[in-house]
Amino acid sequence: MTSIDMIRAAATRINGHARRTPLLSSPFLDEIAGRRVLIKPECLQQTGSFKYRGARSAISALDDATRAKGVIAFSSGNHAQGIALAAREMGAPAVIIMPEDAPRLKIDNTRAFGAEVVLYDRAREDRDSIGDRLSRDRGLTLIKPFDEPQVIAGQGTTGLEIAEDASALGITEADVLVCCGGGGLTSGIALALEADAPGLRARPVEPQGFDDVTRSLSAGEIQRNNSMEGGLCDAILTPQPGTLTFPIMHRLCGPGLVVSDEDALRAMALAWQRLKLVAEPGGAVALAAALFQGAETRGDTIIAVISGGNVDRPVFDRALATLAQD
Amino acid sequence: MTSIDMIRAAATRINGHARRTPLLSSPFLDEIAGRRVLIKPECLQQTGSFKYRGARSAISALDDATRAKGVIAFSSGNHAQGIALAAREMGAPAVIIMPEDAPRLKIDNTRAFGAEVVLYDRAREDRDSIGDRLSRDRGLTLIKPFDEPQVIAGQGTTGLEIAEDASALGITEADVLVCCGGGGLTSGIALALEADAPGLRARPVEPQGFDDVTRSLSAGEIQRNNSMEGGLCDAILTPQPGTLTFPIMHRLCGPGLVVSDEDALRAMALAWQRLKLVAEPGGAVALAAALFQGAETRGDTIIAVISGGNVDRPVFDRALATLAQD
Repeated sequence: MTSIDMIRAAATRINGHARRTPLLSSPFLDEIAGRRVLIKPECLQQTGSFKYRGARSAISALDDATRAKGVIAFSSGNHAQGIALAAREMGAPAVIIMPEDAPRLKIDNTRAFGAEVVLYDRAREDRDSIGDRLSRDRGLTLIKPFDEPQVIAGQGTTGLEIAEDASALGITEADVLVCCGGGGLTSGIALALEADAPGLRARPVEPQGFDDVTRSLSAGEIQRNNSMEGGLCDAILTPQPGTLTFPIMHRLCGPGLVVSDEDALRAMALAWQRLKLVAEPGGAVALAAALFQGAETRGDTIIAVISGGNVDRPVFDRALATLAQD
Repeated sequence: MTSIDMIRAAATRINGHARRTPLLSSPFLDEIAGRRVLIKPECLQQTGSFKYRGARSAISALDDATRAKGVIAFSSGNHAQGIALAAREMGAPAVIIMPEDAPRLKIDNTRAFGAEVVLYDRAREDRDSIGDRLSRDRGLTLIKPFDEPQVIAGQGTTGLEIAEDASALGITEADVLVCCGGGGLTSGIALALEADAPGLRARPVEPQGFDDVTRSLSAGEIQRNNSMEGGLCDAILTPQPGTLTFPIMHRLCGPGLVVSDEDALRAMALAWQRLKLVAEPGGAVALAAALFQGAETRGDTIIAVISGGNVDRPVFDRALATLAQD
C-alpha cells in the first residue's frame, strides 16, 4: 500500500528527471469560473503526460538486477510512452504490448522512445497470455498503469508540488480537481494532500458515460462502466477503479464530477487561448469542471490538473471550433 | 543604462508576480536539431508573453506618487497587455493608445486587463501628439516597449533564470537564441548571461525581410528595415534596434540569425506537437533557428526562448497544416 513516505521517496528518485511543473492561471479563466482557478499543467511533463512520474518511480524502485532484465507494459497510450522513456533513461529494456490497430503515431512514438513494441491481434490473440509468456521467457517485470504502489507513489509527487505551491500562495482550503481513469493520479494526489495540505481535497473528474469512479464513491463500492465504446477521452477510459486506488479515493476524496465531451473540448480551446497549453480531451475534464461546474465545487480558489496533451489534429481542430469566431 | 544590479533588483520586485518559467525539452526536437534543445517558454508568462516582466519591472520602479497618476503606452500587441495587467495589479491607471483598425480581440483583451484604450485614426491623427496631450493633462508616465532601462531590466530576469537552470544542468557553454524585435529581451538576457553564465551567448533571431538587428550587428551601426509591410511575425517587427538596446547587443551578442515565415510556422507546429505549447510566429523564430539552422550555431546544447503565444486561429491553423498527416 502506498504511503506518504513512499511518495516522498519517489519524489527524491524522480527529481531531476521528471519536470517540476508550475501552477498557471489566467484572469480570463478566473472570470469564467467566478473564482481563482489554478492549473497544474502535466501536459508539460516528459512525454506529454503525468504518466512519466509513475513510470520513472516504479522502474527506479526495482533492484538493479531486476531492472536490468527489463520491464513490460500493456498500453497504447500515455503509460506506454512514460514507461518507454523512463526505461531507456535507466538502461532497462522495455517491451510494450499494443493492439495492432492502435494509431500508427502512438506506435511510432513509443518505438521512438526506445521501446520494443509487440503487436497483437485483438480478435485472435490474448494479450495477457502474450505478456505472461514474454515475462517468463525474458524475466520482465510487469508495470501496471495504476494499480501498483510505486506507480501511485510517483503520481503522488504531483500532489506534493501542488501542496507546496498552494501553501506559498497562502491557499489553505480548495478542491483539487483531477482527471481520473483508474485512479492512480487521483489517489496519489489525495495521499500527498492528506499529509502536506489537509485543507485541500482531491476530487476525481470523469467523462460522461464513463463515470465508474464517481458512482463507486457514491455507492461505497466498486462499480463498473456499462460500456467502453465511444467517447473522446481515451486517456482516462478504464472499466473500473483499481483495487488499490479505490480504497484510498473512498477514504480521502470528495465526490466525483462528470463532464460532457463537449465541455472537455471547450476547456481544451480555452487552455489553448488563455494558457497557451495543449490539452487532450481526457486531460481537460478537470479544467472543464472548474470552469463550467462551479456550483458543484466550493471555496474562493479551485485547482485543476491538466493531466496530458497527447492529442491528434482532428480532435484538436474540433476543440478550437468551439471558440467564438474572432 | 541597464546594469546587472538593476536586473537583480527587477527580479526581486517582480518575484511572486511574474512566472518563473522552466526549461522544457523533447527527445523528438533533439533528434531534429542533432543536439540537445532546451526551450524557455515565455508563452506561459502572464498575458502570454515575456512583455509582462518588463512592464511590471518598469511600473514597480516608479515612485508611489508617479505610479498613482498612471502610465501610458503605445501598442496594439503584447506590450499593451503586459502594461495593462501589471498596472491593474499595482492599482495604477493605464492608458493604451491603439490604432482603431487594430484587431478587435487585442482591443478587447487589453480592456479586459483593465486598461483604458484610446483609439486613433492612423490616416488622420498623430499618435504621438495624442500621447503627449494625455500625458501632460493627466500626468501619465510613458512606458516605452524596449528602449527603457527598467523594461530591459525586467526582460533580463529571463536571462537570470536561464543562467540558473543551465548551471543546474551542468551547461557552461551554449548559444541562447532569442526572438528579437527592438532588442529589449535580447539585450536584457545578454546582460544577465554576462554576469551569471559568461559561457552562454545571446543571439538575436529575426524574420526574413525584417533583419535590422542582424544587419546592424554585422555593420556595427544601426540599420533600418526597408519596409514594415507584410510578414507573419507581427510581435517582433520594429523599424530598427533601440538606441539603448543596440550598444548592449553589439558588445555582448553573437551574430543574428534570420528565419523564414515558413520555418516559423513549422516550429509552431512542433511546439504544439512535441512541447504542448502554443507559440505565435514571432515567438517561434528562435526555436525555428535551433531546429533548422544547426550549421549556424555551436555546441552540444542550444537554448531557445519562445517569447510569446498570442496567436489567432487562422495563423495557428496554417502552422498545424505544415505537419505531415498522421
